[in-house]
Amino acid sequence: MRSICAVEGVEAAGIKEKKYGLALVRASGTAAAVFTSNRVRAAPLQLMQERIRKGRLDGILVNSGCANAFTGRRGLADAEAMCGIGAEYLGTDPERVGVASTGVIGRYLDLPLIRRQCGVIAPRLSRSEDGETAAARAIMTTDLVEKHALVRKRTFAVAGICKGSGMIAPNMGTMVALLYTDARVPAGQLRTALRSAVSRTFNRVVVDGDESTNDIAFCTATGVRGKPSPDEFAGALEECCRSLARQVAIDGEGATKLIEVKVRGAPDERSAARVARTVAGSPLVKTAVYGADPNWGRIIAAAGRAGVAFDPDRVSFWVGEGKMRAPMVQEGVIVADLKRAKAAMREKQVTFELDLAAGEGEATAWGCDLTEKYVEINGRYTT
Amino acid sequence: MRSICAVEGVEAAGIKEKKYGLALVRASGTAAAVFTSNRVRAAPLQLMQERIRKGRLDGILVNSGCANAFTGRRGLADAEAMCGIGAEYLGTDPERVGVASTGVIGRYLDLPLIRRQCGVIAPRLSRSEDGETAAARAIMTTDLVEKHALVRKRTFAVAGICKGSGMIAPNMGTMVALLYTDARVPAGQLRTALRSAVSRTFNRVVVDGDESTNDIAFCTATGVRGKPSPDEFAGALEECCRSLARQVAIDGEGATKLIEVKVRGAPDERSAARVARTVAGSPLVKTAVYGADPNWGRIIAAAGRAGVAFDPDRVSFWVGEGKMRAPMVQEGVIVADLKRAKAAMREKQVTFELDLAAGEGEATAWGCDLTEKYVEINGRYTT
Repeated sequence: MRSICAVEGVEAAGIKEKKYGLALVRASGTAAAVFTSNRVRAAPLQLMQERIRKGRLDGILVNSGCANAFTGRRGLADAEAMCGIGAEYLGTDPERVGVASTGVIGRYLDLPLIRRQCGVIAPRLSRSEDGETAAARAIMTTDLVEKHALVRKRTFAVAGICKGSGMIAPNMGTMVALLYTDARVPAGQLRTALRSAVSRTFNRVVVDGDESTNDIAFCTATGVRGKPSPDEFAGALEECCRSLARQVAIDGEGATKLIEVKVRGAPDERSAARVARTVAGSPLVKTAVYGADPNWGRIIAAAGRAGVAFDPDRVSFWVGEGKMRAPMVQEGVIVADLKRAKAAMREKQVTFELDLAAGEGEATAWGCDLTEKYVEINGRYTT
Repeated sequence: MRSICAVEGVEAAGIKEKKYGLALVRASGTAAAVFTSNRVRAAPLQLMQERIRKGRLDGILVNSGCANAFTGRRGLADAEAMCGIGAEYLGTDPERVGVASTGVIGRYLDLPLIRRQCGVIAPRLSRSEDGETAAARAIMTTDLVEKHALVRKRTFAVAGICKGSGMIAPNMGTMVALLYTDARVPAGQLRTALRSAVSRTFNRVVVDGDESTNDIAFCTATGVRGKPSPDEFAGALEECCRSLARQVAIDGEGATKLIEVKVRGAPDERSAARVARTVAGSPLVKTAVYGADPNWGRIIAAAGRAGVAFDPDRVSFWVGEGKMRAPMVQEGVIVADLKRAKAAMREKQVTFELDLAAGEGEATAWGCDLTEKYVEINGRYTT
């Protein structure tokens, strides 16, 4: 098994019919969720914000094709009805069912469809590669590939599936992640670990802006195996989320390359993250990566506009990794080896490393290149 | 005359030789300047920040092709030498000469070239359409068109030339504006008016990110005509800057359309501007405008991530202007007339109007669509 079904106590199933998918995962345990920071939050997120406080779930139902966002009171009632459908098939209380939606904004859920699909997949719930694959596929919208991650430790495992790929035509909610562990983790600790992992991984992926109306990450701990220390668990969860986040970045619309921006020497982690995100999200940096053009000036200029204090005369900057690693600027002095940098930028993964020499903060962000294909996907679509 | 030479006391000249241009403007008077907020500031900006405090200039020299940015101490000395060259030909003190540079980052100025070009154009200084046109052309980098603006009031005029068009290959400093008035305006008042006008116009243009390393706007008041009230002068200066800012937006790289985003009902002007800029700069909004796709969900989602508090259930939103104006959302209820909206989005100028119903703040921002051409220009360039 590649992901969630490798975690003890997790069963999954899914179905995809044209644009409409439904994933059902059964797993009882402590649970936490992290939500988009967008002021406009889809109905299922509004409902979950209340419900997740109790800290326990028996399963999660996720539909794709309709985001149930910007749908007012009816949307909230629909999200609640979706919990009811899940509860019916899982044999539990609706308050113990997590729901999420991803797809078109401003349309109402097709509840009869969801009920029918749930009836089809509930009997298929299983702890198998088929189950996790069907679930991962069911939540995809414009994603080109399923996203699975699995981190095995001696006494427990952490795994996840997710969908990503940028907000898209005709308006897609971006990121939904379902994370599971068989470790025994109290709800409070789970919440802390999840919040930290998401902020260091999913929140550092820049495809085409910030968080969408529907971004949500759930984590459920079935608790049937070991009880790791808080640090050990948090580390494993972050590792799992990092793997998924990188998969989201490389699956950005029209993307051909993964961009990894490592910033160190910032005043603190928060500023390091801000610089890293600004560089990873800069259209000029993204197009330069696409064209394998070692335009280091664009990277420095992007870093400069992130609103973080540093002295340009002390900055150091490298392109590439390992044998490809080429110094471009050393303590403010241009030492660019453009030929080597160009070679590094031809790789499928392009790494930029910045040392701001202004403190101890460090952070990594991920993005993807900007291609004609992105414009085509997002511009040529007709509602 | 179309711009600066319509202002009494202003003479202009310019030359462009391949990628290297030089503009010289003679105008004595009170002067102010506003600089980029980028942490990385080009050498001429560092020099001007000190010099402009005295509040008087006799002329300005601007070169294009080399940004003199990220050039350390030598860059500063070069900027100072450039003041000296200007002073020599204008017959004044170097401290009374403004300088700016735009072009490639990380290269040193070619001072012999600047001296030679200055020798060629100084004798051509004139109050004529040829003069202002040559100056406006000389400062262009990847701009496709010259940018002129002129606002005539009964007792004074305000005019400007500028270059814009996004930071570009292989790393261009973006915006340089030279503004002139024949009104009598004390230096302090000039500074206040310029700061306000720039923040409401140039700082609300989003082509592909934020401010570059070289953004600078000068304003010189020759004082040979009327003495308007502070409000009257500030209004005229803002009008002039707004005209230039819109020209910068529509001349964005690869752009085919101007996007105007009007936000009202925000908690304050600052938040209104933040929402307007976020919408105007969203790649999804930009590609939707390119494809004339009335994807209103993208606009609401972009507004939601601007970090400004509002209630999505009270938002109203329109696409288009005048007869084309189509309501899409009214107080949170979707009323989208997609056919009409699509027609409005086929125009050369696409207006989005958002009422957040959360206060009295309003602001307008400008941007341009995102096209395959942008990717081509910025991705296909090879250093």
